Parts: sequence; structure tokens; C-alpha cells
Amino acid sequence: MRNVDDRSITAAVIEQLARCASPRVRQIGESLVRHLHDFVRDVEPTQEEWSAAISFLTETGKMCSATRQEFILLSDTLGVSMLVDAINHRLPQRATQTTVLGPFYVERPPERALGDLIDTREGPALFCEGTVSDVNGKPIAGAVVDTWHSDAEGFYDVQGKDGLSALTGRARFRTDENGRYWFRTVLPAFYPIPHDGPVGRMLDAQGRHPFRPAHVHFIIEAPGYEPLVTHVFLAGDPYLDSDVVFGVKDSLITRVTRHERGKTPGGHAVEQPTNLLHFDFRLADQQDGRLRRSSESSEHPASA
Amino acid sequence: MRNVDDRSITAAVIEQLARCASPRVRQIGESLVRHLHDFVRDVEPTQEEWSAAISFLTETGKMCSATRQEFILLSDTLGVSMLVDAINHRLPQRATQTTVLGPFYVERPPERALGDLIDTREGPALFCEGTVSDVNGKPIAGAVVDTWHSDAEGFYDVQGKDGLSALTGRARFRTDENGRYWFRTVLPAFYPIPHDGPVGRMLDAQGRHPFRPAHVHFIIEAPGYEPLVTHVFLAGDPYLDSDVVFGVKDSLITRVTRHERGKTPGGHAVEQPTNLLHFDFRLADQQDGRLRRSSESSEHPASA
Repeated sequence: MRNVDDRSITAAVIEQLARCASPRVRQIGESLVRHLHDFVRDVEPTQEEWSAAISFLTETGKMCSATRQEFILLSDTLGVSMLVDAINHRLPQRATQTTVLGPFYVERPPERALGDLIDTREGPALFCEGTVSDVNGKPIAGAVVDTWHSDAEGFYDVQGKDGLSALTGRARFRTDENGRYWFRTVLPAFYPIPHDGPVGRMLDAQGRHPFRPAHVHFIIEAPGYEPLVTHVFLAGDPYLDSDVVFGVKDSLITRVTRHERGKTPGGHAVEQPTNLLHFDFRLADQQDGRLRRSSESSEHPASA
Repeated sequence: MRNVDDRSITAAVIEQLARCASPRVRQIGESLVRHLHDFVRDVEPTQEEWSAAISFLTETGKMCSATRQEFILLSDTLGVSMLVDAINHRLPQRATQTTVLGPFYVERPPERALGDLIDTREGPALFCEGTVSDVNGKPIAGAVVDTWHSDAEGFYDVQGKDGLSALTGRARFRTDENGRYWFRTVLPAFYPIPHDGPVGRMLDAQGRHPFRPAHVHFIIEAPGYEPLVTHVFLAGDPYLDSDVVFGVKDSLITRVTRHERGKTPGGHAVEQPTNLLHFDFRLADQQDGRLRRSSESSEHPASA
């Protein structure tokens, strides 16, 4: 393990993994070293570029806080988050598709009653409704529905100066006996991901815009089903074809309609004219190892 | 750029780099995405493993301070630092070989006079001496010689509770008219790299020890020559064949001898019996693009 050169270094590092107790840790370590060294040999960084990479990673870590996860933004903008999502959610045809969690999920969101107004911010009213069922359309009662979204300005509650102490535009519901959910909030807008940090500087340098199309986040969980981490996107958004985190799927896009008054399609009485978003979710049964693996970890990915 | 799957995601990310102004930034970005995605497809991380990776990188950034650079430790222990060193120092045969900078270099070290005692810590006395010359042996007068090393317990000055305010066992000298350097210090010992952080936990999980063989660091710079970042290793050390950062080269190993009294091989009068380390450095001429590239950045790689 002496006198390594730009080729023999890879085998030398892998040789040091020979006494690794966990086969999985060893597999990940060996693969990481092979691919990382191939990347370095491919681009041949100068010492200056290596130093810049060390600085970039250090600043990315320093930027992380209770309300900001810069490494998740990095994973999202490099397409890693959607790749990991795709690997872990090879779901049956009829199940609702998944997409990225994003950096703004907050554990244990405020529990609210069906029909509540969950957003105190300025903006056009939005009535959200739909059902949670299995892949055959059988309603799931008591499913846990977490939702969160930006406001009409494109900001999430936790981005405000009061951070976690001023939660709004997010809530946890439980579906009724017919598997229905409904709540009142404000219409979200497209927005730039937080770009005042290292990831924002990377996007600038790469000639990329930082925008995500308008969407409402959902995490839906029920015993015996795959937890569903997804968004509902709003049809007509200018960024549907250039989402900076690559999260858009056609099956997750729906049109917000104008509802004047009276019963909604979901059967809820609405007094004031409002924007209406209706989306029905279908959960996959919890089944094979791959799906179990993803469900083990689906509880709080953002606690990272 | 919608409906990406675990294959099409890579092209989708690279497509977003199409408007990148700098060809080099675009090249690095495309290569990073290809190799990073290949790594993810190879190991198929669970969401849980992805979350653990986000946590690991976040903690690694949080661990960095003015006296601790955890991302350099990560680069060192994954063999990336030595790989980048090898790529940037394809030096002429007769030039002294390079090795890693390590995380303990301090910019603008204390300027000392030739012959000074630079270490106030307990430990066996060591007299260091040698010459700085070009590859033909022509002495280089006025070369800047930075040196730093651990003590007999294996700790660097900056690892103490007083950090940067208690520098010892490090100094900057200038060679005399005959290209000579000499100073008095204490004998360094082998030591574990700082392993109370994420990198230490990684080494544990990988079944690796955290030790580096005993060495004295040097950075030597003179106008018209390639800056030299290297160590002198002490012969007989138990970790010469398993350096956790892969930095050992046979040409950099020398034997510490016992010097009783009188003139040293370097021609310096030593009153007390002491351990003696003699090493002559040969600097490569500053020449091709690759070497210029490395010299541009050699000033303060640790400022990262």
C-alpha cells in the first residue's frame, strides 16, 4: 500500500475495506471508491478545483439548519433524489406515482380537522379535496394525509423569519369513513428553490434557473399500504417542463377549476366562490422486499 | 423533462447543463452526474440509506472549523487527495515526490530563524536538517520552508484546547546561501487522524484503523520551481504499510539516527545528544501546463 499512482490508488483503498464487517457497507464503500475515482480521473481536477470542491461541500453543510437542508437541495438538483425515488418505487400501474420529498417537510405537522382552513397567509382561496383508495378503488378510511405547500409568493412557512414557530399551509388529516379528505388553503405558486447558498451558486454557474412548478405536497400512509410521498402539480404552470429537481410526472398534473358555489365534485358544500383542486390517490399494497425497504425509511426522510 | 425513470434521469439532468457558460464547469457537471448516477444505480440505495448519506454529509460539514477540516479527512481517507496529488504532480524522476497536505496546515506559520527550537512540548529531542536544491543538486538559497508535525503523543498543536492561539511544532524558515535548512524540535509519533466525527465512524464501519505513520510535513516554495507539498516519513514505523490516507512513498522514508555530539552531517554544531533527521529536497523546475496548474493552487490548499 505504498507508492500508489493515479491507477493503483483505487485498489489500495478497496484493499483497506477487506475487514469490513457488513457486506452492504463494504459493497457501498467499494462502489463509491470506484465511481468517485473514475470521476476524478475523468475530469483531472487541479489542486485549486479540489480545494473549491472541499469549500463547496463544507459551505453546503454549514448552510444546513432545522429549516434548511442544503444537501437535500444538492441531491434534488443533481437528479439523485428522483433517481433514488425511481429505484425504490417500482409500483403497480394503477398506484399513484411518487416524486421527491423536498427539503421543507416538517415532522409531526399540526393535526387538523377535515374541512379546516390551514393557511393564514394572503392569497387566492383554494379548496382541496379527493379520496384515498387502494389500487382497485376501495376507499381507505383513517389514512394519514400530510400536506404542505408554498403560498402565492412561492414561499414555505418555514422560510419566514419565525421558521418552525410559525407553521402554516401545512397540516395532518385523517380520511373519513369513505376515504375522503378535504381542506381549505391558499393557491400555491411556482417558486425558486432556496438559491442564496452553495446550491444556488452551482445552478448559476451551470446556467440553470432555480424554479419548480407550482404544486401541493402529500405524504399518505395507511397500515398495509406503501407510504406515498408525492406532489399534485397545477396544469398550465410555465415550469412543468424544466423543473429544477426533475420531479414532474404527467399523472400528477391536474387542473385547478373555478367553483362558484354549492356542492363540490367531492360532495362538500362551499359557500364562497373558490379555486378547486380535486385529486384521488391510490395506494399500492405493501408487498415485495424492495417496497418494504422503501417503506422502512419512509417515515421521516427529512430528519436527515 | 417529465416522467423521468431510473435511466432517463441522467440525460434529463445533463440537458439542463446545455446553457452552461463555462466549458470546464459543464464538463465537470456532466461527468459528476454520469458517475454519481452510475454509483446510485450500482448500489440501489434505500430511502433510508439515502437519508443516512444526507446526514453523514451534513454532519461532516458541521464538524469543520478553523482547526478541523472533516471534508479533507474524508477526501484523504477515500484516496481522493492522493489521486488528485498524483494527477497534478507527474514530476521529473529526480525531483522529490509529493504527498497529501493533510488537514493541519496553518497559513502564515510563525517565522523562525534557522536553528531555532520550534516545539515547546514534552518529548525526545529531534534535530532536523538538510538542503533544498534543483533536480541537478544546485542549492536554492532563500527557499521558503514550511514545516509542521505531531508531538510524541501524536497530536498537532491545533488539536489542543487553545487551537490556533497555541501554535508549536510548526514554523517557516528560509534556506541559507547554501540552500540549507536546520531546526530543533521534538520527535513525532504515529497517530490516529481525528476520528471522533463522521469520518471516524465511517472508518469504524469499514473495519479500518485511523492511523498514519510518523512523519514531518514540509511545503517548500522558491521562484521558478514547482511548490513541493510532502512529508518525510520515519523508517521503522508500524503503519508505513497501512497509512489510512495512502500517502507513503519509499523515496520519502528516512531513518532517524542517534547523534551524540559535535558537527552533524549538515555541518551544524550540536551540544546535546539528540535524534537526527537529515533529508535533502530537490525541486522540479516550473514547466508544463499540468505543473503550472498545480502551482497556481499550491499556495493555500488548506484554506478550503
